[in-house]
Amino acid sequence: MESAIMASDPKTPTNTMWGGRFSVPPAEIMEKFNASIGFDQKLARQDIEGSRAHARMLARQGILSEADREAILSGLDQVETEIAEGRFVFSTALEDIHMNVEGRLKELIGEAAGRLHTGRSRNDQVATDIRLWVRESLEAIASALLGWQGALVDLAEAHVDTVMPGFTHLQPATPVTFAHHLLAYVEMADRDRGRILDAKARANECPLGAAALAGTSHPIDRDQTAKALGFDRPMGNSIDAVSARDFALEAMNAAALAAITMSRFAEEVVIWSTPQFGFVRSAEAFSTGSSIMPQKRNPDAAELLRGKTGRVIGAWTSLAITMKGLPLAYSKDMQEDKEPLFDALDTVRDCLAIAAGLTESLEVFPDAMAQAASLGHTTAVDLADWLVRHLNLPFREAHHVVGALVSVADREGVQLHELSDETLMAAHPRLDGSVRAHLSPTASVAARDHFGGPAPAQSRARIATWKERLASPR
Amino acid sequence: MESAIMASDPKTPTNTMWGGRFSVPPAEIMEKFNASIGFDQKLARQDIEGSRAHARMLARQGILSEADREAILSGLDQVETEIAEGRFVFSTALEDIHMNVEGRLKELIGEAAGRLHTGRSRNDQVATDIRLWVRESLEAIASALLGWQGALVDLAEAHVDTVMPGFTHLQPATPVTFAHHLLAYVEMADRDRGRILDAKARANECPLGAAALAGTSHPIDRDQTAKALGFDRPMGNSIDAVSARDFALEAMNAAALAAITMSRFAEEVVIWSTPQFGFVRSAEAFSTGSSIMPQKRNPDAAELLRGKTGRVIGAWTSLAITMKGLPLAYSKDMQEDKEPLFDALDTVRDCLAIAAGLTESLEVFPDAMAQAASLGHTTAVDLADWLVRHLNLPFREAHHVVGALVSVADREGVQLHELSDETLMAAHPRLDGSVRAHLSPTASVAARDHFGGPAPAQSRARIATWKERLASPR
Amino acid sequence: MESAIMASDPKTPTNTMWGGRFSVPPAEIMEKFNASIGFDQKLARQDIEGSRAHARMLARQGILSEADREAILSGLDQVETEIAEGRFVFSTALEDIHMNVEGRLKELIGEAAGRLHTGRSRNDQVATDIRLWVRESLEAIASALLGWQGALVDLAEAHVDTVMPGFTHLQPATPVTFAHHLLAYVEMADRDRGRILDAKARANECPLGAAALAGTSHPIDRDQTAKALGFDRPMGNSIDAVSARDFALEAMNAAALAAITMSRFAEEVVIWSTPQFGFVRSAEAFSTGSSIMPQKRNPDAAELLRGKTGRVIGAWTSLAITMKGLPLAYSKDMQEDKEPLFDALDTVRDCLAIAAGLTESLEVFPDAMAQAASLGHTTAVDLADWLVRHLNLPFREAHHVVGALVSVADREGVQLHELSDETLMAAHPRLDGSVRAHLSPTASVAARDHFGGPAPAQSRARIATWKERLASPR
Amino acid sequence: MESAIMASDPKTPTNTMWGGRFSVPPAEIMEKFNASIGFDQKLARQDIEGSRAHARMLARQGILSEADREAILSGLDQVETEIAEGRFVFSTALEDIHMNVEGRLKELIGEAAGRLHTGRSRNDQVATDIRLWVRESLEAIASALLGWQGALVDLAEAHVDTVMPGFTHLQPATPVTFAHHLLAYVEMADRDRGRILDAKARANECPLGAAALAGTSHPIDRDQTAKALGFDRPMGNSIDAVSARDFALEAMNAAALAAITMSRFAEEVVIWSTPQFGFVRSAEAFSTGSSIMPQKRNPDAAELLRGKTGRVIGAWTSLAITMKGLPLAYSKDMQEDKEPLFDALDTVRDCLAIAAGLTESLEVFPDAMAQAASLGHTTAVDLADWLVRHLNLPFREAHHVVGALVSVADREGVQLHELSDETLMAAHPRLDGSVRAHLSPTASVAARDHFGGPAPAQSRARIATWKERLASPR
Repeated sequence: MESAIMASDPKTPTNTMWGGRFSVPPAEIMEKFNASIGFDQKLARQDIEGSRAHARMLARQGILSEADREAILSGLDQVETEIAEGRFVFSTALEDIHMNVEGRLKELIGEAAGRLHTGRSRNDQVATDIRLWVRESLEAIASALLGWQGALVDLAEAHVDTVMPGFTHLQPATPVTFAHHLLAYVEMADRDRGRILDAKARANECPLGAAALAGTSHPIDRDQTAKALGFDRPMGNSIDAVSARDFALEAMNAAALAAITMSRFAEEVVIWSTPQFGFVRSAEAFSTGSSIMPQKRNPDAAELLRGKTGRVIGAWTSLAITMKGLPLAYSKDMQEDKEPLFDALDTVRDCLAIAAGLTESLEVFPDAMAQAASLGHTTAVDLADWLVRHLNLPFREAHHVVGALVSVADREGVQLHELSDETLMAAHPRLDGSVRAHLSPTASVAARDHFGGPAPAQSRARIATWKERLASPR
Repeated sequence: MESAIMASDPKTPTNTMWGGRFSVPPAEIMEKFNASIGFDQKLARQDIEGSRAHARMLARQGILSEADREAILSGLDQVETEIAEGRFVFSTALEDIHMNVEGRLKELIGEAAGRLHTGRSRNDQVATDIRLWVRESLEAIASALLGWQGALVDLAEAHVDTVMPGFTHLQPATPVTFAHHLLAYVEMADRDRGRILDAKARANECPLGAAALAGTSHPIDRDQTAKALGFDRPMGNSIDAVSARDFALEAMNAAALAAITMSRFAEEVVIWSTPQFGFVRSAEAFSTGSSIMPQKRNPDAAELLRGKTGRVIGAWTSLAITMKGLPLAYSKDMQEDKEPLFDALDTVRDCLAIAAGLTESLEVFPDAMAQAASLGHTTAVDLADWLVRHLNLPFREAHHVVGALVSVADREGVQLHELSDETLMAAHPRLDGSVRAHLSPTASVAARDHFGGPAPAQSRARIATWKERLASPR
Repeated sequence: MESAIMASDPKTPTNTMWGGRFSVPPAEIMEKFNASIGFDQKLARQDIEGSRAHARMLARQGILSEADREAILSGLDQVETEIAEGRFVFSTALEDIHMNVEGRLKELIGEAAGRLHTGRSRNDQVATDIRLWVRESLEAIASALLGWQGALVDLAEAHVDTVMPGFTHLQPATPVTFAHHLLAYVEMADRDRGRILDAKARANECPLGAAALAGTSHPIDRDQTAKALGFDRPMGNSIDAVSARDFALEAMNAAALAAITMSRFAEEVVIWSTPQFGFVRSAEAFSTGSSIMPQKRNPDAAELLRGKTGRVIGAWTSLAITMKGLPLAYSKDMQEDKEPLFDALDTVRDCLAIAAGLTESLEVFPDAMAQAASLGHTTAVDLADWLVRHLNLPFREAHHVVGALVSVADREGVQLHELSDETLMAAHPRLDGSVRAHLSPTASVAARDHFGGPAPAQSRARIATWKERLASPR
Repeated sequence: MESAIMASDPKTPTNTMWGGRFSVPPAEIMEKFNASIGFDQKLARQDIEGSRAHARMLARQGILSEADREAILSGLDQVETEIAEGRFVFSTALEDIHMNVEGRLKELIGEAAGRLHTGRSRNDQVATDIRLWVRESLEAIASALLGWQGALVDLAEAHVDTVMPGFTHLQPATPVTFAHHLLAYVEMADRDRGRILDAKARANECPLGAAALAGTSHPIDRDQTAKALGFDRPMGNSIDAVSARDFALEAMNAAALAAITMSRFAEEVVIWSTPQFGFVRSAEAFSTGSSIMPQKRNPDAAELLRGKTGRVIGAWTSLAITMKGLPLAYSKDMQEDKEPLFDALDTVRDCLAIAAGLTESLEVFPDAMAQAASLGHTTAVDLADWLVRHLNLPFREAHHVVGALVSVADREGVQLHELSDETLMAAHPRLDGSVRAHLSPTASVAARDHFGGPAPAQSRARIATWKERLASPR
């Protein structure tokens, strides 16, 4: 009963809904604010699914007659069809999806429609619908993450030997491969997926039966409805069942972290797409061009992935603020849960599809990467390591030798492995030309051949592991 | 030229828009992400207004012929009419409001439509439109703040003598009046209004003429367009003109602070509406009821005011994150500016209308307030002050005397001004019954008779001041 | 080598640290900004632990001599002792905890200290230290959650029969018990704990061996160090290992959700502590008083729990913004990770201790709760349910009957179960006095006897379940 | 009286402070949470300043004797000296700066110290101190903004003719000059400064005299204290005076927008510092290097400017969340105001100093900029404009001609102004070689010669304007 809400639509007069007491029509803005049908019609399918499970349980418990159950189920089928076929007329006066469905059901089957609400309230109904929606949405995101991971792994496989600079401070630091760099994102996305799945598992409890907040005196069986709706169990406390929105916040946060992962990839694509870097180019489908500069290719998709991160973090912040300090059980503030939740999860799901498409269609320019890897003496550390390992030089002395050689190379405009024997020996008498074999970017990468390192062999092994995991994900 | 965006609508083939180079149709989601017409059609009026000013300036500068100008102006009139009358067909394929208007203009007047874009780019056009929208929106918010202030002042005027407890830690602390409490919100709202007006003043500069980011080689006159559109001046740097969104962030922040002000008022209304407090009751139009508990009145409006604060803060956060670290000039990330901006400013404007309605229709129960003011020995400080002032007791000794008397009153279940002469003198020999006149909540309030204090005389004066100010606001 | 940082302390001249090239002393503020020793000395124990594992692995792999290993281990023991005993002098010029420890080690054991850094970089060292700290911190929070849950369960056990109003919109809605209300928080805290443990599990991978970002050419064994430090496995990609801060964000977010849970409890304690409600009173240790109003008890602890929620959410936001759009691998921006991380996790751990203390020492006033439960005709729904179930009235008709009776009761100033037989039958001919047994708050609560409902039997069963779970938590 | 807080320090027994009632010592964590002396000692100077003004007013109003006033003033002088000289011993048991100062004053002058608190409470005292601090801090930030603006203007002056690409989507779009790009930041910083000054003006009202929340019955004169402390006026409502923190939020938000401005500049410096761009290099003082790669220069200062933006936005979010939904007047939650406020404003002030230093010491490489400006056919729009203006081609046809020529140039690997006469005329018969003069980046820049455009003449004029304004800032 509780949260029945005023409607001023002449066809559904306030008087009828609230037992005839309220005489003043609600202010227009209040009506607009109260109505959620504009965004919660997204929950139509879940709402009907929940009602079916509830009706069946009521009948099995003897609370509802067989005849009423049949009427309700066939009425719900018709409502579902009408909505699916776009024939359903949503009414703002009926405020939300729950009242819209119920109202239509009443038109279709009459009195019995009213019995559907026995032992249920809008509070537990809403909570159930949202959890069903979140569950589906998280599954879609988990699956979209797999899609992006697959695209990354495929691209990596083609670039196991493509040497590029590894960056710190956006400065070239040490050579890696493009595969190795891409595989970092596969790991990141995997943790993102883990969070999504954990959020789904934790959310998968059934609030139905909590009614307004205190359960019901009807002899309901909450295990039945929970099971029918695919939930792991009914929630253990009726007040918690209608008050909790932590599941939404957790889902949104897991999504926000995935958005942050994509934002980092996106930033790199934007930078790598400049003519200065020239490492990659977005496919046309993920770019915009210019009518007068046909060569122009703006990395719009990457920019959107980056830009939408703010939206997703902001959505989380929004709901976190709304829930902070809210007493139990239901407060009207909680109507503000759905818009940020829907927007955040849908956005991340769509962004992941774009990230996958962007990745799999990315043009890569290995020559530009290789060229960049040879700038900045990125193998200086390899030289120092060689001195430590082969000549047993102390760390600090090794660094002084290398520093001196780098200065010479800089002055001469050559790379370390192009320095003459004389120059090498002048820096240290036992430093002979054999060291050169270790100083090309390719050699540097090959030498970093331990678990998690950039050596091609390691990348190949990791790619094989990922292919297996992605083929049968947990 | 720059930001032309792919569209796959068969009627407006990509090929035409981008000079025939892009062969691959954009992914469906990209198209959805790229299209902003769903939310930026809000800018239709501003867009047309900007185009008129631009066309007139071009003609005055000899860049556009008189005939073209006339064709454009009359075409724009028709477009405006079509939109106002709901006859305009918005096309997603044309992506945004600017292309939709221009596309229709071309249908109406042909070739001349293309000349409207001379010396202008979508970047400065968008920036201009948004600033025009923000200006209007801030004016509406400033005006809505006046409306709420007026409602508060009117309600205060009726309750200058209504004593209630002043709270700290939500515990009764010292008596005040309901008028004095309401007037605190008038002050708060006034600073909110100041921020809104400052934001408006600072935003009121014209980006038009900055083109994509670097101005144009056409001999435009930016002063003319700035003046025609009611801006204070053209912006002083073309890159800044298209890159800046600080004006949006400032506007949203000013709005967020107003939302926080309302959230505090709302929290009080929610608490005061409990049967336990019983200080106030929301009018029906701002509440929901229950079909079976006719006496029930849920303070929905207040809860929404409180709950929507999260939304507004979240919107600000969202755009702040998007803008953080964005290089100049335009990046596609900035397409994410409009939705949070529109939502935040519209929400706060609507919330203020609700706050005003809620305030002016609030039922007040002075007896419950007076009763509450007499709980908790809220005049203990008055007693201490009397001892300091009249008996010249040191602060600390006064506090000990009062502490002892409060304990006695608590034990006897009476208020301080109901203590017997014997009890008073037992606590301090010079403490005679004359003190009692100072110990009722009413006396306490009356005694706090300095500027800014709760004495009725002060409230009356302040109300007079506010009435004057609200009548001729800056 | 990478992130060596300038220091202008005369005793550690810049020249020495950077190979003699930089001639200009850093600006004073830069030095202040660069130095993290003020906050990262918190990581001392973890840093030493990590170094021990690294040294042992290096020796086992033949990269470090036995003698050097012994010197390093005994030197680290001494450093640890000095820090534990407060004798260690932290130097800002040495910037961070890692350089401080290494610097002192060098003073103690000389040359060998330099070999400790073989095959390691500050980037993987920092990442390892933080993960170790986060792991411990999450364990402490998980344990503190158990503590609060225990206090809630104990308090609930004493109040299984304490009837109070269940609230929606902060208005009395349906009777529940205080136990049932408290048990809602036990459920909420359990999900909070689940998130904390999931975050811990996901963070428990070892970055050591990733070096600056690309691993090392030394023949290290990352499994050894991972195992020695209690990690589940080495991280699978060296770039990811030093770039990732999602584990920190996930931990902070899990903590933020726990803070939100506490904020809701805190809001209730604040409201329930008013003289108007009078449901509870905070113990002195968790309150402040007034020197002249001895009866005064401000619920400071609850207010702090509520207020600190902003701090924790803000900390998460802060790091999320910093990480958004950051290219791989290490950027200096990431130095901003530690302060919000430390602050958020420490705050939540401390808040939970306070929440537990506040809960277990809370004075409860069952009479006030019972009195409140009898206001507002909170059993009207029970009456309607009875009509539906016993008289088989349609839902809507039942509501009309109840609405009429509530109006009468309101007029007469009685509760529903105090209405006369005549009144009952006037509303519906078959509504006899037997219904009264169902209309007291106590009866209402007892009737809601299904899983998750407020009936005392259900609460007792749930309390038993929780006691078992808390005794052997996962 | 109100907010006296428990202390368990044996030297200041709880009993004395709270009139002997509280028997239980506060939990240790509560004490830690309650104590703010760790961060609010920053307010020492402001606290003493406020006390002086209050004492003088009390004496002038006859509330305090001349002798007491003199004792208090000379005692405060001594306390100030002790603090300034680092001899003051801050006590956690005395909780905050206000009690610490008052406690010491009592030791120094005895009884009279107690009279200083007449007609004042910790609530208005704290509010006054913070406003004084914010005022000073905003002045410092405004001044630091001027400093950065000056550095930008100076650098711009040296680069009025340094052509560089203007970017959209981080892709070269149209040529501008480095001066023009830098001047965009001068405009942005000017609006930042305007917000800071507006925040300062709005905050400059005096809360003193509001006492706990309801003023006082002592005959105080609030105009006197307001004037003595440099405030524009006393605040108009005592409840508002102690409840308001909007001034802090506004100040923090203005600071956050300045941080966002710097973050955009910082992002550009980071990108421009890559070897790929090579536009600029940070001075050593604002960078870190590498011991073995002497040529290495990491743009640490820029990264910190960018990274600290998260911290400042997070601080704002933190306080906004804390204040949302807080009832009037003082709640303990508000103790959470100072740390984020202090941190945000200090951080931005320091960041601005670094931004100024970074800017004025930036090495600039004009050749790399010029080279970049010649990539990507950045003058294609100039060619189209020429066709429109000189040959009166319709916009769309002009674009087709240019698109064709750009394709040819791309194929031939030349720039537009290097195309042969034949090629030009093949594209359009009236397109002769005279157009070439308009197609170099330098010519393009020079042609954009309107207010706000990049032409050197415009930059010079704008620089002159800024020099004047910065010399006599409002």
